[in-house]
Order: sequence, then structure tokens, then C-alpha cells
Amino acid sequence: MENQHNNIALDNKNITIIGAGVIGASWAAVFLAKGMNVTISDPKENIAQDVKDYVQGALTELSQMGLNTQNISLEKNQTSLFFEKDLAVAVSQADYIQENGPENRDFKANLWKEVEAHAPNHTFFLSSSSGITATQQATQLTKPERLIIGHPFNPPHLMPLVEVVPGIQSDQSYIEHVLNFYSALGKSPKLLKKEVAGFVANRLQSAIFRECVALVQQGVVTVDELDDIVTTSLGIRWASGGPFLAFHLGGGAGGITHFLEHLTPTMELVWKDQQNTTVTFDAKTKQLIIDQINEKYGTESIPSLEKSMSAKEISIIAALK
Amino acid sequence: MENQHNNIALDNKNITIIGAGVIGASWAAVFLAKGMNVTISDPKENIAQDVKDYVQGALTELSQMGLNTQNISLEKNQTSLFFEKDLAVAVSQADYIQENGPENRDFKANLWKEVEAHAPNHTFFLSSSSGITATQQATQLTKPERLIIGHPFNPPHLMPLVEVVPGIQSDQSYIEHVLNFYSALGKSPKLLKKEVAGFVANRLQSAIFRECVALVQQGVVTVDELDDIVTTSLGIRWASGGPFLAFHLGGGAGGITHFLEHLTPTMELVWKDQQNTTVTFDAKTKQLIIDQINEKYGTESIPSLEKSMSAKEISIIAALK
Repeated sequence: MENQHNNIALDNKNITIIGAGVIGASWAAVFLAKGMNVTISDPKENIAQDVKDYVQGALTELSQMGLNTQNISLEKNQTSLFFEKDLAVAVSQADYIQENGPENRDFKANLWKEVEAHAPNHTFFLSSSSGITATQQATQLTKPERLIIGHPFNPPHLMPLVEVVPGIQSDQSYIEHVLNFYSALGKSPKLLKKEVAGFVANRLQSAIFRECVALVQQGVVTVDELDDIVTTSLGIRWASGGPFLAFHLGGGAGGITHFLEHLTPTMELVWKDQQNTTVTFDAKTKQLIIDQINEKYGTESIPSLEKSMSAKEISIIAALK
Repeated sequence: MENQHNNIALDNKNITIIGAGVIGASWAAVFLAKGMNVTISDPKENIAQDVKDYVQGALTELSQMGLNTQNISLEKNQTSLFFEKDLAVAVSQADYIQENGPENRDFKANLWKEVEAHAPNHTFFLSSSSGITATQQATQLTKPERLIIGHPFNPPHLMPLVEVVPGIQSDQSYIEHVLNFYSALGKSPKLLKKEVAGFVANRLQSAIFRECVALVQQGVVTVDELDDIVTTSLGIRWASGGPFLAFHLGGGAGGITHFLEHLTPTMELVWKDQQNTTVTFDAKTKQLIIDQINEKYGTESIPSLEKSMSAKEISIIAALK
């Protein structure tokens, strides 16, 4: 395997998607748009119809994202989308595998063992898992270094980020190929240097959500007021530049040095306050959140809310290009 | 005072800006664009030139934001921008005061006492403070209910959010006028129900930044890699919908109820992990952040980085309209 794969040709490469819930179906749409042959392996009864419906429903969004939807045919005899419930058969000609199965450590470990027994030697083993590391999933593999996390941010056909998290035994050229693979798909892969629980984006999301829940619990704001605060400030800021750049600029002419000198004492006080506040998802807290969400967002259906949020995400991605 | 001020006429109203650093100057640009007469009171020597330079430099951005820059003249004899170092004179005809002085409790308390002695009875007392509450600032006022926090998100001429945080004694009709005032300026004011330290947006920012620092300390990612992760995922998400809506949709067809049932145990584990991790801004941590920021962003000047980030923010705000 060479060290450089900057221009990976995806056209007509075979990818097998294991598990095609929303994440798998969204991945399928991207892979198809990039000209790949996609085989879905999922035991669910109506899986073919479900995936086709999802891809069909995503066509407009894919096209708004600049993807070539002419590559996507769902007509029998013309399609490059296939379904094969037998895992051994499904992976037998795969160049890549993107796994999106249940978030269960043993399930995944057993799954990869069977995959390894039937997949070609060159196949890349990729997992969308948001929580179970490559090392944890690879315990039963003969060559554990083949397995790497490629954790997308939901929904994969819209969001640029893919967190690439190798197991401790993965080798460099293999990792580089995986990064180039996701780049070739139009994604923004980011390599993490350590296998930390929840990876980066979800750890950040958890950290902020704790304070969101605390502020709602304390009656400072309601859930919709908090959401409005974020969309009219932090969201715009962080879609434009990350927290470190934002604070580098927040320091004025003195940059991050000025910021760290003058603004950290206040922040450390807030941290202390937050650390001293107990936040748990007990029954009362859950009900408070559910009630407030139902009151504000409950009048609109989930698919309709989703469509409107996706439209905004697409506009932002387009505006930033 | 009536209860409803939905259509506040700003044209030719007098506003006095106390303290015209970057925040005050940015506010000045907005007030001028809305046809207000702006008086700046700031003891700094070259304040007139500094503010004019700032406003001049912001004209293109204001115009991209849809503001009427034809209202802004900086020519002598034509301008509605005035400078008056004597605070008593500066506030004597003010309809509104937007204060952006040093973040010092005693300084502000004394300042407002003098303001109250010289301002008309109808003047609204507004403070941009990000940390000192209205109650803390109003200790020396005869009518403390006149003082309300109007905390903008930086920079005020771009960011929609203004956190409106009344002191415990503020009355409802007064608060409503302040909300309508910021709405008339084209901002998205949000009323907080309690005076919590750091208000909402900065508390959220502090919470996430703690984990950002922890991840860099642990060597999981560098500052620029973390920034890239945020701009390609969470930023886009949170500019489109806040954390609660995002998780309502993250629960799929079952919405927030499904989310809270299935995904909170994992999040609570991450919280525990984060709580058990010590993060402080000690000398070593500060230097690590400074070094990494210099390495990644140091080749570009702060004004240039700022311009490019503002351009992205403007594009996003326009895309979401």
C-alpha cells in the first residue's frame, strides 16, 4: 500500500453498508452519488424499501449540496444499490465496509470477526460508532489494525465532519488512505490522536448540554429561549471559527495571550459554579425538558422540523464555501 | 409608559454611549445606521478618531448586514455622531444610554449615580456588561429599576443576540420597552428570568471551553484541529437549531423522549469523566494554548483573521434570513 492516496477513485468501487438505519441510509446516498456500488446488509424486513425511500427523499438535499444525483438510480436493472442479508456474501467483494450496527461491544466484536473471515484482504473496515472504540471492536480480529472509526456527524449526507479514530494498532499508511477516502467523498475527516470516550464532537456537545439542562432547571430560560440564544450567537460564531480562534480574536490586538491573562479568572469562577451544580437526568428533569419541548416544538412534526433544520444547515454550508 | 412599544421610532432619538472601546464603537455604528443621534462619552484622548475609524471600517459589513449606511455621515456639520467627555453634559439629553465601561463593580455603581443626577427622567439605562449584574450596578441609584443589562454578543454590529437581564427591581413595561428597543435595532433580544453569573451565552461558552482545553491538554487534538471539528459539525448544527431542538431531532421519530431514554446514560458517563478531570489555566496550560495558536493562526494578523471570520458570520446570517 502506498503512503499517498490523495486522489482516490471511488467510481465503481464496492462499499458494503452494514446496518442501514438513518445513518447507514444517509451514507448510502453519499456513496451512490459518488458512483460507488453500494451493498446493504441489514436483517430488517423492509430494508430495501426503507433505504430507497430515504435516498429518494434526500435527492433534493444531495443536489443542493452539490452532489451528482444523476449517479443515483433506484430503478431495477440500472441501480448500483444492492441488498444482501447474508453478511458473508455481502462483504465478499467489498473494497470498503461502513458499519452502522447496534452500539453493543460484543455484537460489533463478533460481527467484525465474521467480516474478516469473508472479506477480501484489501477491504477497509470502517465503523460509524459514536462510542465504541476501534480497539474495543477489534478484540476478535486477526488483524485488528484494519479497523478504524469513521464517525460521521448526523446526518452524514450533509455534515462535513467525520472523526477518524484508529485503534492503537492501526498503521499510518492505512489511516492515511481512510482520511483520503472520506476527503474523496467530500467530507472533512479529522484524525484524533487518542481513543477518548465519545470522541471530540460529542464530548463537547455533552459538556455544553449539561449547562443547558442546568439553566433550564434553574428557570433562567426555557428550552426554546436557550435554543434561540445559541442560534443567534454561539452557533453563528462557531460555524465561522472554532472556540480557540474565537477567543484569540476575543483578546483584541493582544490575541489569545491577552485573553488568557484577563478573562480566565472569570471563566474559572463559572467553571467552579458549574462543577458545584448537580445535574442529572432524573425523572423530574426529563419531564421538564419533554414538557417544554412539546410546548414549543410539539406543534410541528419531527420530519417537518428536520427538513427545516436541514435546509438551514445546507444554506450555511453553501454560504461558507 | 404604555405596555406595548412594538414599533419604536429610533430616528433622531438621542443615545449616549459611555465607554467606546470596540464594543461601544460597534454599537455606535448600529445606532447611527438606525438614524439615532449618538453622543460618545469616553475620557480616552483620541476617542473621536478611534470611533470614526472603527465606524468607517465597518461600513461595508453594515451594508452587507442590510443596514442603511447612508444614514452614517462622519463629515463635520453633517454628522449625527458627537463627542462629549463631561458625563453630566453627555447624558443630559439622552433618551437611551448604552454603557460599555470597565468591568468594575464600584466604577459602574458610581458612574450610574452620576448619570442619574444628570439624565432626564425618561432615559433608559442600559449596560453592555458581560458579568456585573444590573442589581450589582444599581446599588447607588434612587430608582434602581431603571437599569437593565443589554449584553450584546461580540461584535454587536453583526451578532443578533442581546441578552436582556433586568435587576430584581425592574418593572415589566420598562423591560418590554428595552426588548422592543433592541428589536427595532434589528437585534434578537432575549430576556433572562434570573441574574445568573456570566448570563447564558458566556456560561455555555465557558462550559464547552473547559472540555476544549482538556482535550488539547490530553493531546487528543490540537487547538486548530478542535476548531476544525467545531466549524464542520457543531457550529453548523447550532447556527441552524439549538441544542434542545437538535437532540429532539436526534431522537428520530420518538423525538426528545426517545433521546432522553436511550442516550442520557452515555452522556452522564461523559459528564462524570469530565467532572473528574481537573482543568485549570495554569502557566503550562496557557503556554500550550498560546504556542499552538501561534503555530496555526500566528502567520495571519489579528485584523485579517477578524475580517475573514466576520465575513463568514455575515454570510451565515444572510443565508439564514
